[in-house]
Amino acid sequence: MTAATPALLAKARKHLFVAVVSDTLDNMGLVGQALAPAIRPLDEALTFLGRARTGMYREMFHVQPGNPYELEIKLIDDLRKDEVAVLACSGNPSIAPWGELLSTASKARGAAACVTDGLVRDVKAIRRMKFPVFAGGIGPLDSKGRGIVAEIDVPVELGGVRVTPGDLVFGDADGVVVIPKAIEAEVLSAALEKVLGEHKTLAALKKGEKLATVFARYGVL
Amino acid sequence: MTAATPALLAKARKHLFVAVVSDTLDNMGLVGQALAPAIRPLDEALTFLGRARTGMYREMFHVQPGNPYELEIKLIDDLRKDEVAVLACSGNPSIAPWGELLSTASKARGAAACVTDGLVRDVKAIRRMKFPVFAGGIGPLDSKGRGIVAEIDVPVELGGVRVTPGDLVFGDADGVVVIPKAIEAEVLSAALEKVLGEHKTLAALKKGEKLATVFARYGVL
Amino acid sequence: MTAATPALLAKARKHLFVAVVSDTLDNMGLVGQALAPAIRPLDEALTFLGRARTGMYREMFHVQPGNPYELEIKLIDDLRKDEVAVLACSGNPSIAPWGELLSTASKARGAAACVTDGLVRDVKAIRRMKFPVFAGGIGPLDSKGRGIVAEIDVPVELGGVRVTPGDLVFGDADGVVVIPKAIEAEVLSAALEKVLGEHKTLAALKKGEKLATVFARYGVL
Amino acid sequence: MTAATPALLAKARKHLFVAVVSDTLDNMGLVGQALAPAIRPLDEALTFLGRARTGMYREMFHVQPGNPYELEIKLIDDLRKDEVAVLACSGNPSIAPWGELLSTASKARGAAACVTDGLVRDVKAIRRMKFPVFAGGIGPLDSKGRGIVAEIDVPVELGGVRVTPGDLVFGDADGVVVIPKAIEAEVLSAALEKVLGEHKTLAALKKGEKLATVFARYGVL
Amino acid sequence: MTAATPALLAKARKHLFVAVVSDTLDNMGLVGQALAPAIRPLDEALTFLGRARTGMYREMFHVQPGNPYELEIKLIDDLRKDEVAVLACSGNPSIAPWGELLSTASKARGAAACVTDGLVRDVKAIRRMKFPVFAGGIGPLDSKGRGIVAEIDVPVELGGVRVTPGDLVFGDADGVVVIPKAIEAEVLSAALEKVLGEHKTLAALKKGEKLATVFARYGVL
Amino acid sequence: MTAATPALLAKARKHLFVAVVSDTLDNMGLVGQALAPAIRPLDEALTFLGRARTGMYREMFHVQPGNPYELEIKLIDDLRKDEVAVLACSGNPSIAPWGELLSTASKARGAAACVTDGLVRDVKAIRRMKFPVFAGGIGPLDSKGRGIVAEIDVPVELGGVRVTPGDLVFGDADGVVVIPKAIEAEVLSAALEKVLGEHKTLAALKKGEKLATVFARYGVL
Repeated sequence: MTAATPALLAKARKHLFVAVVSDTLDNMGLVGQALAPAIRPLDEALTFLGRARTGMYREMFHVQPGNPYELEIKLIDDLRKDEVAVLACSGNPSIAPWGELLSTASKARGAAACVTDGLVRDVKAIRRMKFPVFAGGIGPLDSKGRGIVAEIDVPVELGGVRVTPGDLVFGDADGVVVIPKAIEAEVLSAALEKVLGEHKTLAALKKGEKLATVFARYGVL
Repeated sequence: MTAATPALLAKARKHLFVAVVSDTLDNMGLVGQALAPAIRPLDEALTFLGRARTGMYREMFHVQPGNPYELEIKLIDDLRKDEVAVLACSGNPSIAPWGELLSTASKARGAAACVTDGLVRDVKAIRRMKFPVFAGGIGPLDSKGRGIVAEIDVPVELGGVRVTPGDLVFGDADGVVVIPKAIEAEVLSAALEKVLGEHKTLAALKKGEKLATVFARYGVL
Repeated sequence: MTAATPALLAKARKHLFVAVVSDTLDNMGLVGQALAPAIRPLDEALTFLGRARTGMYREMFHVQPGNPYELEIKLIDDLRKDEVAVLACSGNPSIAPWGELLSTASKARGAAACVTDGLVRDVKAIRRMKFPVFAGGIGPLDSKGRGIVAEIDVPVELGGVRVTPGDLVFGDADGVVVIPKAIEAEVLSAALEKVLGEHKTLAALKKGEKLATVFARYGVL
Repeated sequence: MTAATPALLAKARKHLFVAVVSDTLDNMGLVGQALAPAIRPLDEALTFLGRARTGMYREMFHVQPGNPYELEIKLIDDLRKDEVAVLACSGNPSIAPWGELLSTASKARGAAACVTDGLVRDVKAIRRMKFPVFAGGIGPLDSKGRGIVAEIDVPVELGGVRVTPGDLVFGDADGVVVIPKAIEAEVLSAALEKVLGEHKTLAALKKGEKLATVFARYGVL
Repeated sequence: MTAATPALLAKARKHLFVAVVSDTLDNMGLVGQALAPAIRPLDEALTFLGRARTGMYREMFHVQPGNPYELEIKLIDDLRKDEVAVLACSGNPSIAPWGELLSTASKARGAAACVTDGLVRDVKAIRRMKFPVFAGGIGPLDSKGRGIVAEIDVPVELGGVRVTPGDLVFGDADGVVVIPKAIEAEVLSAALEKVLGEHKTLAALKKGEKLATVFARYGVL
Repeated sequence: MTAATPALLAKARKHLFVAVVSDTLDNMGLVGQALAPAIRPLDEALTFLGRARTGMYREMFHVQPGNPYELEIKLIDDLRKDEVAVLACSGNPSIAPWGELLSTASKARGAAACVTDGLVRDVKAIRRMKFPVFAGGIGPLDSKGRGIVAEIDVPVELGGVRVTPGDLVFGDADGVVVIPKAIEAEVLSAALEKVLGEHKTLAALKKGEKLATVFARYGVL
């Protein structure tokens, strides 16, 4: 129940990938931690592991008087190194809460990534700056007059998974998994061990051994 | 209410992008002009700005006697420089109205692009010829016996947006927006001004300034 | 009603593409042989033509005692050269029946490809090994505790198309078509002829001829 | 391959129900003849068995000059006794091709029913006149300016089933099945026999016998 | 541009039905005023015509400290005679904002109805009290911890239609239409005239006249 | 952690309704226990409270040799008084696992109800016998050749909720909730207390008191 140490996080960033962490969570009985496949990376070459900072969008159908970006600005300006902006939009396909400006501001603060079930825009510019964004789609529609951040730093759900502020969020080309804070050290350690088993299995399969033989020997598939 | 001049169109093609035009349309109260995110470019590097020529497909379940491509051929053969073939298929996921042959014929006439909520096929050949196609998906199914162009040069809807013949259609990696003909000059001019504001905002954010400070100064996000 | 000879298959692999085979099947009255557009290749540069070996997944909500991969292992270990693993998951978006280990084992046996309406994981590794996988999406979720192969070598349906063991399955960037075994030689031969007609049409269109003229001359569009 | 005689049709109307005909079609290898469950009767107490007269709607986004109801009127005015108006709308949820006026006109001609995957309106009046309507939903939207009948008396598809003019269409509270014309006499006769088996099974089950015993004895479930 | 007088509203409540108002709105060019068919009445025998009072729900994933029903209570306690509670839930299928207690409170204040794209619960009790509720479905899930009213008396959208506070909302067994305030008198008057034409058409059809003849005479279908 | 006594169950059947049990589960932190609203009762007048006996269907595309109903028959023949047949079909809209014969057999054994996310057929006969069936839709399609029970008496999911054999399942016109076995006595007792509070709230609202006043007094809404 202790938090992952910086050393463990560094090791995880170097050796782990999302699929092996997903399997590890499964083995611990946490079978609902992978975001739905509709949430995809803008750039499949980028990976991230960081702590969730959450924002909950709501739909609206008029332009709110005052600053429509107030809580969104507050969340982004407060991001710290290795934090992940997690923006839940109730799966709304008509709003792009993220774009080049927020990517630029987040990167300047050392943030790790943005994960949202809404849309993202300015995708060419964001790819150029190599900031990891995982989104529910691509579209040009600004949030102003369509949605607004109603709360920040509260539990949210996106892609079918609950994210609590402070949870570890891990993304690569295979998708995104959420690692609950309370068991993060245990999950990362177990996943690092599992990686070894997979290497042996893979080597045997490359040599042309039967799956049945290899699975019987290592118990990993 | 005057049409955009060739000079304004040239400037727009050089400096504008879809997101800033979408914001400009929002500011003028036109909030439903961006096609749904399911309509994606075959090649995200290609952009276009041109005038809509429309075709309305209908579903059918037998092979029509006579020439099943009659109106489709008429539309494409009549395309002029910088026109965009806009083919509405009622979101039908079982028909590919566009492919290499129509791309070749359209490009030979100087057409700007094809936009459809149906499927596209021959995608590798089309990418090689650098003709912009924005479609609802990829699939090999010819329209013959599945659908037919029922009318051309009439108002249509695709991706949730009404397109009237002659409207400007603008596409890039972020999606497609439709600019109604009656206000096109106003929209493009306002968008060109907005681009300047975004450049300043971006420069300030890159230096690490807070979003709150920058938004207070420029009012752009 | 004779099977395609190795020579015909070789010619088909060299000259055919999925769209022309789809058109040929249409002309023979088989209009439902193309998988739905949601099933996409991991790597659009790869194509395959091989014989279906089928597995039918079922959903489950507990971890089955014993070896949860038994039939899956049996199917893959038994794959022969140019066979295609066709894994039907009832469109389940919560299970990844395919990944790096199965790709490695299949490739070692000379298998042609994997086609599934489920998810695929380890996508970067699979792309590196150039093994063709066509899937309903990308996600990290292992099948253990979520699904299990209930039967192998039986008729299945995926992407709206019935696949019988031994059918030819053909995939490229435009999608996947299934060629029923009983008529495979006839389909491939007719498609090879149709390719010629398309080449002539294309050449005429590139010269700027009207679609109407070209279609009147060759009858191909 | 002979058509059902009036006597057979009368017997079918008296003794058959949709589920037993669906089972009979299954037994003959025709497994795709039941319309999708989204198509429901306005009044579950009404049943019908009649011959299909088909109309194919297409979507449109302007009001067509001239008479927008031309082919629709032609189809309805031409309905004869025991014919069924089958109106395919490509599943369009934004158009009500059927209402009180068409029900009144059809009933006056002795038509048996209307089946559509579009919407129906004037539902209280239609229920009062006891005319069977099976539709994809209820809504007030007239077809004018939204859709138009593009062809009549051609093959159509609705609810996932192909309907050819002249096919028998049979509906009750359990749904709608389509009986291809070529085998209608065979299907109805076999279904009438199957009804007997089900009566015996039911009687045994009511007495509290085990399903296993009863199924072993009669082979019907 | 004048508001409907009490006399006109009374006449409308007596003689009009939703379909004829929908047609009238169509004729005036307002083609998007009918709520999607998924929003259905709990009791098809009940109709209502009243003025919209709006509430905009947002999703949440924790129980908000304080009174989670604050704005909802404020809206309902403030309802006046013939007002309609219009509760937009962004189509959320996991929340029932309406039930017996709110129906009781609303009825006590003389409110006309509730319209929501969320769920409704306590349906048997609500049917007994004959209070009209039109909802997106039926389910037992309370809003507490799932959603909360974020704003009241603002423009909202539900079932694809924008509703502005004060708009007339009209519902019967065929669905719900929204009549913008600015043109309400004009719409109701035109609809009352159209009803007459439909009566004549209907009478002629009942006598067995052809649709073609009747439509030529009265121009109404 | 003790099981509900027969007396408590009797009291629950007499005084409780689904919505109040759903609220009680919410209050205990179990917020995902109500089946999705697509699962509806055939007859809204019928309610049930019983223990789950589960069957897990899988899809298939051929007729299995041998008895295709083997496990289904085993499950139903083994039902005891007040047990509920819970048949999970992975939301498959193309299979009706339930009908008149199974209803008859189940009723003869004293079973309480059937709950399924598949379809139901023979709906008029089932309504006549007053056996409660809650299903994902209505359709005539037999399971033979489309689906088969793969396992019985295992955990399943339907309508988004996990059901473990022995869980209490409770249904009425508002829907279905699943009460995990371990806390059933606690849930039912708490719900019985909550019913009292709602009665007082309702009485006050009927007298015309403000919601704000009543909620302040009783804390129930």
